[in-house]
Amino acid sequence: MDCVPIKKAARNYCSVESWKNRFPITKWLPGYSLGYLVSDIVAGLTVGLMVIPQSLAYASVAKLPIQYGLYSSYMGCFVYCILGGAKDVTIGPTAIMSLLVSSYGKQGPDQHTGIHEPSYAILLAFLCGVIQLIMGIFHLGTLTGFISASVVAGFTTASAITIAFGQVKHILGIHFSSGSFAEDVYNTFKHIPDSNPWDVLLGVITIVALVLLTLIQKDTVVWEKKGWKDASMATKVLWKFLWFMGTARNAIVVICGMLVALALESSGHADVITVTGHINSTGLPAFKPPDFHLPNILGVFNIGIALVPIIGYFESIVIGKGFARQSNYKIEPNQELVAIGVCNIAGSFVQAYPVTGSFSRTAVNFQSGVRTPAAGIFTGAVVMLALAFLTPLFRLIPEATLGAVIIVALIKLIQLPIIKRLWTIRKLDLVPYLVTLVASLGLDVAYGTLIGIGVDLVILLFPVARPSIKIDSSSQQINDLELSSASHSQQLQVGAESVAVVTVDSSIRYPSIDYISEQITELSSSVDHPTKLVLDFSRVNMIDYTVVQGMSDLMVDLRRAGVRAAFANVLPSIKEQLNKGDIYQLRMFDSVQDAIWSLAENTGEDLEPDNNGDVKA
Amino acid sequence: MDCVPIKKAARNYCSVESWKNRFPITKWLPGYSLGYLVSDIVAGLTVGLMVIPQSLAYASVAKLPIQYGLYSSYMGCFVYCILGGAKDVTIGPTAIMSLLVSSYGKQGPDQHTGIHEPSYAILLAFLCGVIQLIMGIFHLGTLTGFISASVVAGFTTASAITIAFGQVKHILGIHFSSGSFAEDVYNTFKHIPDSNPWDVLLGVITIVALVLLTLIQKDTVVWEKKGWKDASMATKVLWKFLWFMGTARNAIVVICGMLVALALESSGHADVITVTGHINSTGLPAFKPPDFHLPNILGVFNIGIALVPIIGYFESIVIGKGFARQSNYKIEPNQELVAIGVCNIAGSFVQAYPVTGSFSRTAVNFQSGVRTPAAGIFTGAVVMLALAFLTPLFRLIPEATLGAVIIVALIKLIQLPIIKRLWTIRKLDLVPYLVTLVASLGLDVAYGTLIGIGVDLVILLFPVARPSIKIDSSSQQINDLELSSASHSQQLQVGAESVAVVTVDSSIRYPSIDYISEQITELSSSVDHPTKLVLDFSRVNMIDYTVVQGMSDLMVDLRRAGVRAAFANVLPSIKEQLNKGDIYQLRMFDSVQDAIWSLAENTGEDLEPDNNGDVKA
Repeated sequence: MDCVPIKKAARNYCSVESWKNRFPITKWLPGYSLGYLVSDIVAGLTVGLMVIPQSLAYASVAKLPIQYGLYSSYMGCFVYCILGGAKDVTIGPTAIMSLLVSSYGKQGPDQHTGIHEPSYAILLAFLCGVIQLIMGIFHLGTLTGFISASVVAGFTTASAITIAFGQVKHILGIHFSSGSFAEDVYNTFKHIPDSNPWDVLLGVITIVALVLLTLIQKDTVVWEKKGWKDASMATKVLWKFLWFMGTARNAIVVICGMLVALALESSGHADVITVTGHINSTGLPAFKPPDFHLPNILGVFNIGIALVPIIGYFESIVIGKGFARQSNYKIEPNQELVAIGVCNIAGSFVQAYPVTGSFSRTAVNFQSGVRTPAAGIFTGAVVMLALAFLTPLFRLIPEATLGAVIIVALIKLIQLPIIKRLWTIRKLDLVPYLVTLVASLGLDVAYGTLIGIGVDLVILLFPVARPSIKIDSSSQQINDLELSSASHSQQLQVGAESVAVVTVDSSIRYPSIDYISEQITELSSSVDHPTKLVLDFSRVNMIDYTVVQGMSDLMVDLRRAGVRAAFANVLPSIKEQLNKGDIYQLRMFDSVQDAIWSLAENTGEDLEPDNNGDVKA
Repeated sequence: MDCVPIKKAARNYCSVESWKNRFPITKWLPGYSLGYLVSDIVAGLTVGLMVIPQSLAYASVAKLPIQYGLYSSYMGCFVYCILGGAKDVTIGPTAIMSLLVSSYGKQGPDQHTGIHEPSYAILLAFLCGVIQLIMGIFHLGTLTGFISASVVAGFTTASAITIAFGQVKHILGIHFSSGSFAEDVYNTFKHIPDSNPWDVLLGVITIVALVLLTLIQKDTVVWEKKGWKDASMATKVLWKFLWFMGTARNAIVVICGMLVALALESSGHADVITVTGHINSTGLPAFKPPDFHLPNILGVFNIGIALVPIIGYFESIVIGKGFARQSNYKIEPNQELVAIGVCNIAGSFVQAYPVTGSFSRTAVNFQSGVRTPAAGIFTGAVVMLALAFLTPLFRLIPEATLGAVIIVALIKLIQLPIIKRLWTIRKLDLVPYLVTLVASLGLDVAYGTLIGIGVDLVILLFPVARPSIKIDSSSQQINDLELSSASHSQQLQVGAESVAVVTVDSSIRYPSIDYISEQITELSSSVDHPTKLVLDFSRVNMIDYTVVQGMSDLMVDLRRAGVRAAFANVLPSIKEQLNKGDIYQLRMFDSVQDAIWSLAENTGEDLEPDNNGDVKA
């Protein structure tokens, strides 16, 4: 055996360059400068201020105690700094990961609080990381190419609707244990009369404030871009201040909400608005491995074990590619998989649930002028400080405030205008979008996405499953033959009643064999019932095992229907496959004419197929 | 709107002929004769004798109380008699359906007995029937074409191994609650020292007896075929007797086992061998609808809700087609789906779990000379009689006997010789076989099958995901152009440094867009960095929404890399799609030459793409 290619691959694999690619920090760290450091600190701290309220809110989407949002927000930043290839990407909990965790990272909620035991979510993070790492090492990231843009849009829209609607109850200050989207809708409307008007007031004010701050932030980005050079110092300071207010909007509304709660508590009206309430654990989480001895792991994680790593990767890579495009650099998808994988594995040791790149925080990171992934260190440090010193305050966070934060963050992910785009560009692509959307809302997003991918594949594979078949049952070829070989005229006239030539216009693969067999056997029971049939394989350049089996069955079926069949123009490789398939009375000829001639010559002396009880199952 | 085709379809749908196809009984009943009746009675009773011990054993595979096997064995026979199109097919519990029910038809076993609450299995039968009925009505049976012969072989082998090995503990007389295949193997070997020698003795004797009877039955079939005409009356009677003994082998060993247990019980040694033990309910099951108010239905049924109907249908159709081939008639797959669907719906009202066509019983039905599906009436009647009068005796059935019945029945389903066939016919098809086999044994057969189908689709789609791309970066075309249009020579020389022409050799669909984009952007960062690029779309006859999005991103990427790009030879329909896609600086020309010319003419005046924070997610 020749080992040269293996040796070469091994040498390639071990080269300094490839190891540098595996640790992108080695590429940017040598050129790191004070200017970069300042930029990274500003960006890192800005994102840090953003991630604290966001992660608390997302933990509540994941139906975990809210401090788990912070537990999940720092380790990923540190790890990504070493392994990550996109300067802008910020790793941490996201809405979609939280939604998946709420479905696949739990063993049934606590009866009293509706909160889940976090051990499963942490183990899920570990396993998700291992799968992502393996996928990255074996370069399987490209498999996500089988998820089309329509399915992604359907999935994102359904997730956003599910998550946002799930928060309406917090705005209304009503309580019930959440279930599917349909149950949530039903219960929310049923409980509207029990709404707490003070929660509603706080929620609505928070939403309005958040929308205004979002608009302000967007406008300042535009103003700065257009008029930064000509602006006065005062204008610049005002713009920066407004931009910062907009960016820190979540932190601002959470602090305001806490102040309101504190004021109410001090004045003896603690129960007027619904707050998060007492948190058992304070400070940083312990560093310990996830619990590998949980019961019924497969039952709990279910399809989540496959979908959480894939969707997590997908979310991050879409964001990473988008911002790499903005900043004119390239990212290596499989290296990103490795990075996120290690983020999740390491995260599971500090009780993090599955994390990935966050769109909103990555955008702010970019706008804040981040230069390298080192910014993550400062984001992580802010989160750790918050955990160390602020957890006792979290009990004051009003639930309506967190609900408002989530709703405003997610409403823009609801992609309905895409319906018009799909309609104008390719109507058929509306089907996977709508199927994914409806199935995700009706069942849950994971199943909905799987179903959507399935429908998309069926649409994609339709041409493979239904190749075009040309059936020529004229007897012209026979007549030609009669002229050229007069000695065979007796048989030929018998044969001339009808010969069908069937040409399949592409390679034959397993999804199409039933269809092809049916078309051919139907032909044999048609009115001008041909007694001879030639399968012209001139355009068939690939078959598979199922097709060989199918051809074998087809030959028996044809013989029983009184049709004598032969193959013509079979490629040598396919000839070999058919020969090895033990096909009943296999006859192959170099041309259609030869095949017709031979069929016309020998009639009737074929053996009947075996009539015993054995069938090939 | 023109209603003619709808009217025509409606008329077709309502025609007498199509209704006759929907009730195949209308086709054979008018010609029914006394001769047919005798044949059907013989076949029906023979199969009835066979189904009683088999169904008791399969119920234990499904981890249900054994009488549920009989509950599942008669309604299907009656319904199929009216709706079924294959005279040989016998509907009832099967090993594979039972295995699936053991995984997806339960809410955790009873702590003491390891037996599951049957309500879920019954509801699963109902839902499975509804799905099959819907699939049949909408002609979705063809979707099973996406399951290749390799996956089916892997699935069947894994199921047989799992079920057969799961019975080893009954032969050994040891007890532990079953789990995955791996857990079963581990626990079985761990408990070997606790084996009950009397159970082992009974089990081994039963296995030997069954194997001998199977061989005798096979031989008599051969003898009869060869020498029936010349045989003496005595020989014929002997053959028929031996054949019957072979066919009734399961009933014989079960009766013998019960006699042994009865003898031991009477002599005060009741505990020497392990028996099924007392059965709570006796007689026929009540006729009542399944329980629709069970908790956590989605969690229990899981992917089973999709796989049980599909695998059930698949099992039946493979058997049906095989025997239709033997007896020279045709079956209509979608009508079979309707028939099995109604069998399952009706069955769920008499507490049946999901049923389908049984291979072994169909084979015996065929060998017994069945003429019409009316034989099912007699099979069903035998089962009902057994339920009415024999249930009190079932407590005496030794577990080792049932275990032996299952092991002998399934060992022949283990398809290992197929490895050699796959190896010789198409090695790549070994991959889905082995993946399905290993994943089914490692996880469970449902997940394993899904993974196998996935791997198979990836192999199938590889050419779609990796179309061949021809890149021509010679500057010859430019030079030709220089000669023909001298006035443009200045710009052309600038352009002549390098122009790449990229031709994609098939339609571009979503799984390939990332790959194509990567190939093209890599080109732009290669050594002979082309500054101009023409995408020759002459062979592209289909694109989709994801591709339009991808092309839009690609154009931005190329511009940022300093490459000016244009499309050439775009089909009108694709031109329209691209036009509607808001693609950045979209330029389309009627020929590659025109495109090169235009690119060479206008240099540098393009606007830079927007540099704001917005990316398309």
